[in-house]
Amino acid sequence: MAESDFGPIAAPLFERMTIIGAGLIGSSIIRVAKQRALVREVVVTDHSPAVCDRVRQLKIADHVIEDAAAAVVDSDLVVLCVPVGANADVGQRIAPSLMAGAIVSDVGSVKTAVLDSLSELLPANVHLVPAHPVAGTEYSGPDAGFSTLFCNRWCIVTPPEGANAEAVNRVLEFWRGCGANVETMSAAHHDLVLAITSHVPHLIAYNIVGTAADLEEVTQSEVIKFSAGGFRDFTRIAASDPTMWRDIFLNNKDAVLEMLGRFNEDLAALQRMIRWGDGQGLFDLFTRTRAIRRSIIEQGQETVAPDFGRGGPARS
Amino acid sequence: MAESDFGPIAAPLFERMTIIGAGLIGSSIIRVAKQRALVREVVVTDHSPAVCDRVRQLKIADHVIEDAAAAVVDSDLVVLCVPVGANADVGQRIAPSLMAGAIVSDVGSVKTAVLDSLSELLPANVHLVPAHPVAGTEYSGPDAGFSTLFCNRWCIVTPPEGANAEAVNRVLEFWRGCGANVETMSAAHHDLVLAITSHVPHLIAYNIVGTAADLEEVTQSEVIKFSAGGFRDFTRIAASDPTMWRDIFLNNKDAVLEMLGRFNEDLAALQRMIRWGDGQGLFDLFTRTRAIRRSIIEQGQETVAPDFGRGGPARS
Repeated sequence: MAESDFGPIAAPLFERMTIIGAGLIGSSIIRVAKQRALVREVVVTDHSPAVCDRVRQLKIADHVIEDAAAAVVDSDLVVLCVPVGANADVGQRIAPSLMAGAIVSDVGSVKTAVLDSLSELLPANVHLVPAHPVAGTEYSGPDAGFSTLFCNRWCIVTPPEGANAEAVNRVLEFWRGCGANVETMSAAHHDLVLAITSHVPHLIAYNIVGTAADLEEVTQSEVIKFSAGGFRDFTRIAASDPTMWRDIFLNNKDAVLEMLGRFNEDLAALQRMIRWGDGQGLFDLFTRTRAIRRSIIEQGQETVAPDFGRGGPARS
Repeated sequence: MAESDFGPIAAPLFERMTIIGAGLIGSSIIRVAKQRALVREVVVTDHSPAVCDRVRQLKIADHVIEDAAAAVVDSDLVVLCVPVGANADVGQRIAPSLMAGAIVSDVGSVKTAVLDSLSELLPANVHLVPAHPVAGTEYSGPDAGFSTLFCNRWCIVTPPEGANAEAVNRVLEFWRGCGANVETMSAAHHDLVLAITSHVPHLIAYNIVGTAADLEEVTQSEVIKFSAGGFRDFTRIAASDPTMWRDIFLNNKDAVLEMLGRFNEDLAALQRMIRWGDGQGLFDLFTRTRAIRRSIIEQGQETVAPDFGRGGPARS
């Protein structure tokens, strides 16, 4: 979807949407929903009074209501945009106030745990349709959001077995309206896919930044100075929100440990190639990994612009 | 150094510079040396006739001479810009043709091995002053270079014991002329610093891309689609030149294995935190790693622009 197509749609998909949690993702949903008139009215709630105040100042929502239970009354779409570990608590608080027939969704990076905890808590007359927009930046909070964050990114929707087909379709339509491509899959498969494409990458990024910080032979100032050699790229994702990521690892333990096990096995083999001077083995792996990058660029998930040299003056 | 300062300097630092290997780094040196008139004459040689032809087409050098020995005759600065493993072979070929008093330098990411192999091969009447500009992109070849690649990046110079002070100063001056900040240290310390800031990061990036490619439960097409969750950032550095990186790992084995050992220890601890649900331990590490990113940005080695959302339309 090009930016020029990013105007209002013909008719709103929902009458009243409540966003719970106005962080990077929540505040981006608000912005695109207003810009494209995907919903008639936007209500925002956040457990932090400071965030509520900031949303009021930014004037990006129609109503800001500090009490989550009050905020969901009469909303036909409620989207939880909180760290995965907070979903159960929020679910408990809003359950009694949800409108019959309302759709409850979320944006969490883990789906099985969310489905398990929320489906127990919510009343039978609302539709739980979990979703996960695979998009983000390393920044957090209501100021970090922007309306095109989801543009050409993927949103994975993981309906529970026996989910209401119309409710699922309305959630898919909403995310298409946000500019995303959509795909549905089971929660369990989602958690495995994200373990390798997102969770383990974050884990090893956090890990190497921690290793570098603890060295004695190499000073922290040297690590920072010479970070353009590759280390820098890891610090970006290792700067992501700590609460959000703690919750992801605690709630997707099995899939993360499974993928991490494979990563470790492969790394041991690579370590052995270095120790024994197996140049051909190294060369073969390094050639194979280039092809994956090409596919990612071809499928519009990355730009071709060279980026290691960033931060200097314009090229010539 | 701002781009506006990137004009010609008062007087050339060298009469005749020979660049051996017109890849990303070599062709960037040529471009900045011409643009700023750092040297009076630029000679280029490359073992690939196709690369030599391309340099002629690009008109970025004064002379292109396919034979390396012939190319270094009368040059007071010779810079080897070849994969680390090719230095010895090149050193052997050019040694008999080097001018007395010439400075021989290189740009390799490993310094002890280079120093060991070249200092044996070169005649006693030339000055060997190895250097390593910590800059690059994921692209290769003569078309990939640009004159501002080294701007505000660091160049580490590793003079051998007893090196001629004037020769060292001239190399430092040359790299300052390329826009770089300079620092001198021992080859051994350089190799340790780069193992953690560059070599191990590349290794784990190559590794996770390989792990993802080999999965059976998650298809390659899913890995590519959902790469915006973090994986994408690793594919950039895992797309770097395979020959160059094979040579780095073969030639900096000890430092890489040492740093990789620490990385593995730390990763085992992190894995255990996930298995036992140590949320506080995870949170503490994830908070600590944020500070390092801030320092890297403050010191101009990275831009603050949020980048996970790249590839979409402009923000609003």
